[in-house]
Amino acid sequence: MNEPLPPLVRPSEGDPLDGLIDFVPPAGDQPRLRADAARNRARLLEVAARLAGECGAGNLTMEAVATEAQVGKGTVFRRFGDRTGLLVALLDHHERELQAAFLTGPPPLGPDAPPAERLRAFGAAVLRHEYAHRDLYLAAGADASRRFSGPANQLRLGHLCMLLRRAEVTGDVELMAQTMLGYLDIHLVDHLVGRRGMSLERLERGWGDLVERFVKAA
Amino acid sequence: MNEPLPPLVRPSEGDPLDGLIDFVPPAGDQPRLRADAARNRARLLEVAARLAGECGAGNLTMEAVATEAQVGKGTVFRRFGDRTGLLVALLDHHERELQAAFLTGPPPLGPDAPPAERLRAFGAAVLRHEYAHRDLYLAAGADASRRFSGPANQLRLGHLCMLLRRAEVTGDVELMAQTMLGYLDIHLVDHLVGRRGMSLERLERGWGDLVERFVKAA
Repeated sequence: MNEPLPPLVRPSEGDPLDGLIDFVPPAGDQPRLRADAARNRARLLEVAARLAGECGAGNLTMEAVATEAQVGKGTVFRRFGDRTGLLVALLDHHERELQAAFLTGPPPLGPDAPPAERLRAFGAAVLRHEYAHRDLYLAAGADASRRFSGPANQLRLGHLCMLLRRAEVTGDVELMAQTMLGYLDIHLVDHLVGRRGMSLERLERGWGDLVERFVKAA
Repeated sequence: MNEPLPPLVRPSEGDPLDGLIDFVPPAGDQPRLRADAARNRARLLEVAARLAGECGAGNLTMEAVATEAQVGKGTVFRRFGDRTGLLVALLDHHERELQAAFLTGPPPLGPDAPPAERLRAFGAAVLRHEYAHRDLYLAAGADASRRFSGPANQLRLGHLCMLLRRAEVTGDVELMAQTMLGYLDIHLVDHLVGRRGMSLERLERGWGDLVERFVKAA
């Protein structure tokens, strides 16, 4: 009934913006940075994340990151290549934060809570997280054909399937998980909040109701 | 709780491909064609629809339509302007067929069936219809920001809300309808069928299960 999920794939070459949301490199797959270089990179990302939060990712410049981090512009270029490289790294950074929270974080999102509770928390977390970084996620998810097959999305899908099974939901778990991911689509959320004037609280309640309808029948 | 749905809007000017799926002109809002011109246009559309079905809309040419309909190429250009105009008219033609079926057609899709039955039939009909014309719908729905606000989508949303209410489903009906529309998203369907190897029958069963979960709890 349920085919196994395809393995995570490496992001394709080409326009790096194409692969924004897909970029979840397996640990150890990049050349290991020396400890100080890694710290340096992490610090630049923190600065970039703060600036993007304040002014929007669309207004982020390499110069502003350099100034704010009190390093030379060359350092920022050396670390990220160009502005697109910085945005890719930033999205990857945010996605890893979210992944850490739902894979290994504290309850109710992480593994120490019962599956139904984790399902409820997952939707609320993704809604808040993507909405907070919506300019990055909107840019990354614009290519419809990649929306469903990127590794980040595959990870979320697999996570939802796992939680639904543990919650002993019967039926076509993969299609249910897809339905749930569709509800969290940042383009839909942006439409409902921005154009239809809905609150994130209302969307969270709607998510809770959706989880209830899948879990209750189990 | 539920804000009223926004009124249907006229398609915007500009690149007509942008508005492909949005184009549902109200009756009487176009200059009335003389009866023979209207018949002529309908015949050309039938021919174009058959050719697109055989060879894919991507391969459709004005020349092929003219040859197949045994008219001069100038007639096809005069009627549709250019190839984009033909594709817009073709999508509009297909969308109207679907709309006629769920608004005024025979049961179980049309008004003579109970609402829960119409809900079940609606998903199956949209799945089959969009998948049959998927190259047109994929091209039309590629712009994520327009995916949710086009008149055709608004009509489907309003229809689902109406059926859910008549089926006495309680809760946030608009969000449920959005969830259901997300399940029918042609990009998702194309991914599940083309990449994950699922059958349309499986997607139809999944739709039936989704309807059940919303309606049963009512």
